Amino acid sequence: MKITKSKVEQESVKKMDFGKMSINAHKKFGGKLELVSKFKLKNKVDLSIAYTPGVAEVCLEIAKDVKNAKVLSLKKNTIAVVSDGSAVLGLGNIGAYGAIPVMEGKAVLMKHFAGVDAFPICVQTQDTEEIINFVRNLEPVFGGINLEDIAAPKCFEIEERLIKELGIPVMHDDQWGAGVVAVAGFINSLKVVNKKKQEVNVAVVGAGAAGIATIRLLNEYGVKNIVTFDTKGAINIGRTDLSKEKFEIAKYNIKNLDGSLKDLIQHFDVFIGLSKPNVLTVEDVENMRLDPIIFALANPSPEIMPELAKKGGAKVIATGRSDYPNQINNSLFFPGFWRGMLDRKSKDYNTKMLIKCAEVIAGLVPKPTSEKILPSTLDKKVHEEVAKVVRNYK
Amino acid sequence: MKITKSKVEQESVKKMDFGKMSINAHKKFGGKLELVSKFKLKNKVDLSIAYTPGVAEVCLEIAKDVKNAKVLSLKKNTIAVVSDGSAVLGLGNIGAYGAIPVMEGKAVLMKHFAGVDAFPICVQTQDTEEIINFVRNLEPVFGGINLEDIAAPKCFEIEERLIKELGIPVMHDDQWGAGVVAVAGFINSLKVVNKKKQEVNVAVVGAGAAGIATIRLLNEYGVKNIVTFDTKGAINIGRTDLSKEKFEIAKYNIKNLDGSLKDLIQHFDVFIGLSKPNVLTVEDVENMRLDPIIFALANPSPEIMPELAKKGGAKVIATGRSDYPNQINNSLFFPGFWRGMLDRKSKDYNTKMLIKCAEVIAGLVPKPTSEKILPSTLDKKVHEEVAKVVRNYK
Repeated sequence: MKITKSKVEQESVKKMDFGKMSINAHKKFGGKLELVSKFKLKNKVDLSIAYTPGVAEVCLEIAKDVKNAKVLSLKKNTIAVVSDGSAVLGLGNIGAYGAIPVMEGKAVLMKHFAGVDAFPICVQTQDTEEIINFVRNLEPVFGGINLEDIAAPKCFEIEERLIKELGIPVMHDDQWGAGVVAVAGFINSLKVVNKKKQEVNVAVVGAGAAGIATIRLLNEYGVKNIVTFDTKGAINIGRTDLSKEKFEIAKYNIKNLDGSLKDLIQHFDVFIGLSKPNVLTVEDVENMRLDPIIFALANPSPEIMPELAKKGGAKVIATGRSDYPNQINNSLFFPGFWRGMLDRKSKDYNTKMLIKCAEVIAGLVPKPTSEKILPSTLDKKVHEEVAKVVRNYK
Repeated sequence: MKITKSKVEQESVKKMDFGKMSINAHKKFGGKLELVSKFKLKNKVDLSIAYTPGVAEVCLEIAKDVKNAKVLSLKKNTIAVVSDGSAVLGLGNIGAYGAIPVMEGKAVLMKHFAGVDAFPICVQTQDTEEIINFVRNLEPVFGGINLEDIAAPKCFEIEERLIKELGIPVMHDDQWGAGVVAVAGFINSLKVVNKKKQEVNVAVVGAGAAGIATIRLLNEYGVKNIVTFDTKGAINIGRTDLSKEKFEIAKYNIKNLDGSLKDLIQHFDVFIGLSKPNVLTVEDVENMRLDPIIFALANPSPEIMPELAKKGGAKVIATGRSDYPNQINNSLFFPGFWRGMLDRKSKDYNTKMLIKCAEVIAGLVPKPTSEKILPSTLDKKVHEEVAKVVRNYK
């Protein structure tokens, strides 16, 4: 009975025109975020505490030791969500202005799920050095930098340099958020089909930010054979056109497979798409190994629609969308991650910590099924558990 | 009776240790600002509207025409308060971190008094070109840029260049906010002492951001004789060490006076200090022309304490502080200004519009007295009236 009801809800959700509803809501409110004071301002005394003359003492206390900004100012609980709009959702390079609604959305989620204050910064330039310099200059008021929707390969250098140069944590969510949640879904999908991580063959389509990070995390988690496909086909060490990152992941293609996804599809137990709509067909799914697992994560239009993947015999199907079962979305990760990082003493994190995050997320669904491999983003427990891992990781 | 009571309040306010109270409050709340969602996030439908998949349509609508960001995103109602911390209050160059509490304070005031969402940005660099480049890159998410506490003379070039280069309004509040409110106080002070703007001699001490703008506005308002003093004495056209801005205001020293403030003090009806503590003595005030008007606006410690100015015979005394009568503070101006600019079709403003703002502020005190030349910042009518002038100015 309960499953039937949830299916009916799912169907009615699917029929809604979210685009139109979203435009109307954004128009009505004029964006999603507002800035609110935690101080009251009723009289002269209030003014003298929040502003002059009292505030001068607070300024001097911070000027004496900038670490006091983490105690006495919004830096304590505020991060920036920074994008140049070069790779927004699955929409591509739509520029800084087009990126604003997504960055505002992430800020809204962080506050709601983890009490993190986040502010969207959409930077006009798309030049690597200028972005790095910009974020360096942005550091004082923020407790962390969440990089977002910045195209590969420049996102790798930007993240790497900023992690090195800033005194606050920096995390590119399209890499690590996507990766952590994909691994969490992967962990539970294997339980559904009763396969072992050391034995499955995984195809990842898309060697962008999310693809590369997911592969790094799958490898860290213990998956042996991962074949990545870019627009030229399977990535293997024989190819001469590889970037630094692609060369690194080429070695996980342990049988050195060469060719197109269609040519090689019969090798795989798991398909993870982090690329663009319609790269996988019903026939492809039919040709995969027993009980295919399909993660079609291009957003908002997946690599194959769930109805078609099912027709091809997929056992577990996940997308990035909230209107189908098994949503694989960074929002299971980033709010708790930032809560934990703001509370944590160190600015550092690593792939081992991220695997632990994936494991606690997966662990919140004790008996995974085809229709339910991940907890809901709406479940605040998820964000609390992720925050706990991050806060306490040594 | 009422005056007595208000005096008692004033006294008790004066005895409070605002610095300590302010530090405690900032520590308790961890800064003053938080970011709150205007959208609810109760269920999957809410998520699909605020975030994916619905948000993609909003992104595309803006990417199609960036002007839609003013309708569909926080750009509609949000400005940045940008400082490099090079001239914070009267504290000097305490750096970007030290500046944060003031910028947060301005944001709190804008929201409270005028419904403007403002976010503090304290930029790490103090280099003119880097600041300009930074703000240019910051433009997409904001509806305006309030420059703040940036030292002269670089503040002039930064404001001028950004006004030219950005598609949104840019206003350096230390110049125009200080200037507008000083002129408003000046208008009503002349009524108290019954003198005419064309006939008074005005000494301005401090040729920084606030000084230069105040002089420009006083001149626009119709004051003929304004002598400015910098650390080397009276500024006149005979001096060979003048910056572009100082050369411009030297011509308002119509008698070409030369010498120190002390030497020349007997010439003046009005003293306006925008400099540093203790530059004026009781004896100086005694030596001024009949019914001296003293604006001692250095913050938080004025050029002369009100008690001493009174002892010297000052008829009207104003400071920048909230714990004395006649507070001359930008906060009478900037919330309404930004409300009006965000609502206005054009990004332009000019000194004529600003004089009108000064006049409506002054007009809100129909019968000015020595103790009351300006309305209270707490009076929301002030901000509504300023906003109306700005919104409708042609």
